Amino acid sequence: MSAPVVLVIGAGDATGGAIAKRFAREGFVACVTRRREAALAPLVQDIEDAGGRARAFGCDARDEAQMVSLFDTIENEVGPIEVVVFNIGANVLFPIRETTARVYRKVWEMAAFAGFLTGREAARVMVPRGKGTIIFTGATASLRGGRGFSAFAGAKFALRALAQSLARELGPEGIHVAHPIIDGAIDTAFIRDNFPAMYAKKEQDGILNPAHIADTYWMLHQQPRDAWTHEIDLRPWMETF
Amino acid sequence: MSAPVVLVIGAGDATGGAIAKRFAREGFVACVTRRREAALAPLVQDIEDAGGRARAFGCDARDEAQMVSLFDTIENEVGPIEVVVFNIGANVLFPIRETTARVYRKVWEMAAFAGFLTGREAARVMVPRGKGTIIFTGATASLRGGRGFSAFAGAKFALRALAQSLARELGPEGIHVAHPIIDGAIDTAFIRDNFPAMYAKKEQDGILNPAHIADTYWMLHQQPRDAWTHEIDLRPWMETF
Amino acid sequence: MSAPVVLVIGAGDATGGAIAKRFAREGFVACVTRRREAALAPLVQDIEDAGGRARAFGCDARDEAQMVSLFDTIENEVGPIEVVVFNIGANVLFPIRETTARVYRKVWEMAAFAGFLTGREAARVMVPRGKGTIIFTGATASLRGGRGFSAFAGAKFALRALAQSLARELGPEGIHVAHPIIDGAIDTAFIRDNFPAMYAKKEQDGILNPAHIADTYWMLHQQPRDAWTHEIDLRPWMETF
Amino acid sequence: MSAPVVLVIGAGDATGGAIAKRFAREGFVACVTRRREAALAPLVQDIEDAGGRARAFGCDARDEAQMVSLFDTIENEVGPIEVVVFNIGANVLFPIRETTARVYRKVWEMAAFAGFLTGREAARVMVPRGKGTIIFTGATASLRGGRGFSAFAGAKFALRALAQSLARELGPEGIHVAHPIIDGAIDTAFIRDNFPAMYAKKEQDGILNPAHIADTYWMLHQQPRDAWTHEIDLRPWMETF
Repeated sequence: MSAPVVLVIGAGDATGGAIAKRFAREGFVACVTRRREAALAPLVQDIEDAGGRARAFGCDARDEAQMVSLFDTIENEVGPIEVVVFNIGANVLFPIRETTARVYRKVWEMAAFAGFLTGREAARVMVPRGKGTIIFTGATASLRGGRGFSAFAGAKFALRALAQSLARELGPEGIHVAHPIIDGAIDTAFIRDNFPAMYAKKEQDGILNPAHIADTYWMLHQQPRDAWTHEIDLRPWMETF
Repeated sequence: MSAPVVLVIGAGDATGGAIAKRFAREGFVACVTRRREAALAPLVQDIEDAGGRARAFGCDARDEAQMVSLFDTIENEVGPIEVVVFNIGANVLFPIRETTARVYRKVWEMAAFAGFLTGREAARVMVPRGKGTIIFTGATASLRGGRGFSAFAGAKFALRALAQSLARELGPEGIHVAHPIIDGAIDTAFIRDNFPAMYAKKEQDGILNPAHIADTYWMLHQQPRDAWTHEIDLRPWMETF
Repeated sequence: MSAPVVLVIGAGDATGGAIAKRFAREGFVACVTRRREAALAPLVQDIEDAGGRARAFGCDARDEAQMVSLFDTIENEVGPIEVVVFNIGANVLFPIRETTARVYRKVWEMAAFAGFLTGREAARVMVPRGKGTIIFTGATASLRGGRGFSAFAGAKFALRALAQSLARELGPEGIHVAHPIIDGAIDTAFIRDNFPAMYAKKEQDGILNPAHIADTYWMLHQQPRDAWTHEIDLRPWMETF
Repeated sequence: MSAPVVLVIGAGDATGGAIAKRFAREGFVACVTRRREAALAPLVQDIEDAGGRARAFGCDARDEAQMVSLFDTIENEVGPIEVVVFNIGANVLFPIRETTARVYRKVWEMAAFAGFLTGREAARVMVPRGKGTIIFTGATASLRGGRGFSAFAGAKFALRALAQSLARELGPEGIHVAHPIIDGAIDTAFIRDNFPAMYAKKEQDGILNPAHIADTYWMLHQQPRDAWTHEIDLRPWMETF
């Protein structure tokens, strides 16, 4: 099998799914993960219906052994991983005095520690080949702490530190590390169901279309190595910032 | 004449020229300026040879009357300006005690004041139409002052302040304002002739290809309004940052 | 007992010790912690010899129950805590492929999670009183990721996110949250023994004196509430930045 | 005359005046400038009434010849200048399309170009002595552009670029360059007369007391050279940021 491989860690939401579809459309085998493999069936079906190739993997991205095994399995069974996308978020909002140690730790494990495992395993397989692309999804909270955001901003800041550190360490090894920052609500079922006022802005393009986020990830991977982007923000035209 | 119009202020260097060519290739009429109109002839010729359309304008971008007139002339004679690119730099390096008031002022006039006139005139013609793209070219010195960079960083910081202010003011008017940051040497005659050691990195893609910078400007203009970028960095894979 | 109380979490190094001494000199009871209580004896002795008051507490700052109990004990037995300083670092340097999950996690637990527990418990006792000062010690790696710094920068970025979030959440409650950034080597036994070339700069004031860092912490606590500082950098005059 | 000398460029407002008084109280001869010398009489009187020494100089800080002459006169007639404070602001708020070239230029001349002349002349007299302190007053707009702030943020960004560049160039020469950022309204006649709602926050310490700003400038000058601050923010406890 000679098709290039993209691995999307956290393809459980609209964004991860859109990225997988975008790369599949370009001929990539889309390896997608979330905790429960069964939940990935519709995404795999969509990709295959469109003529693409996809593979689903149930994987807890916070578990080192599972992650090492995931990369090994894909490298052995599917092919060399050319692109890795880390797309797990864990957006929570709690006043500091109501933030439990359990929440603070879980948010970090999902949004930062799992990102570290992803980046390290990607480096492990990519550095010997001297090429590859690693993309970590950032958010507004990657740049700015805020009232109620101790846990979420803590994890997203840590992920940004990882992305910067890897860009500086792996760039000269030929590996492109990018950190797009999504600054705005995304068109997802979650926003639709929980934030109707926010979702209403969809009529005026006031929330992000996951397919357009995916276009940016594809663009980042396509950049020639004399002109790589490390950080790029994306927000709706009417978003305050 | 119904072709869309791009205006490149400062098409005297490789980057401005590449941007003009890129948009011309997409069907835009490329209106290009530099101080001496005659010096633009080769660029116009190149664009026309490739089947595109271009118009050259001699214009001192630091002169308010000339700039107002430039926008009026293009709007009246060529068509509505859809994209404006401000691409004048003025990179100088002087220890503070050797920085004359004349140099400090001229660098600001070229790299910041002319950017202000460009942004304001672009806003004047675009706001009533509720659309348009304005792109200001940034540099490493847009983000960080340094030894010997009082004048150049001063001007580039001011230009970034302008880009941020316009993005926040004009975004909700439907106008996309972007500030790409070029962090590295560009493949130009200037670098080739003056910095041979730097230019030697071209062999390994260690300096930026102007055509790839231009691709980014085109991408920025193509973004749908639910997913606009304000800032994006571009640097060679081997560049230290 | 009516003396004000300062709590220094992580008084095991020169900086934490100097801060405790500084506040003790101003009449505060210095409550100092590190994992092993016995190791605090010399610091307590120093403070008492100088006529001050100090209390040592063995406490693993990563352990929620121990931290809750620490704050309760001090509030009940010593007095209301007016100032809390979080001063635990965990500076490590590993290439990404040699960074174990254990190291990544431990660095975060020491430098970020323990900071979260500190901030939350400080908020718990201070918010009802509508006053207090919380200071988190930052470093160069709080602002910038770097080659080999995935773990350390990850933790320090997370701590900065916490400090920012708490400043925005607790400022309007009357609580001053500050994040000084120490950018340079500090005059410690560790630097002296392991980095002799760096330590040699002490002759020219090229490394930070812990007593001068402590002066800054005292100044931050003294600021009237109409002019509070959130972030302040400190570096030797000859340090490159 | 052996007293140390502080030069405050722009002592026309409450902040510049408070800084002059603070240094005079510490035994400095306060040399103060504004465009019209006569307007400085009350400030000089205040300082002298308090037992201090002051000298007033009418000087247009945007005029190179006047600035060179100012430094020469003080060095010759008063004594070596140990501290220079640049404190000229020019806060204006205009939508981009209503920002005239004249306003954009004047704001820059007052808040950035005059700062450049100040920094350069300070470097001229201080570098040969290998010591001195130069402080540039920053504002919220030094860090962030905003709707209507193209001109003011442009000038303040430029001033910050200058401060950073000088800190990196002159620090190793023994000269301390600092850039405090005042983020909030200051208790001035201007605020009292024009923004009564904002001024009403004075009751709750919601606006900055110029004397407290001055304390920070004095603290910056007092820092030993192993622990210098380049940037420090100051804001009222209830200020949103």
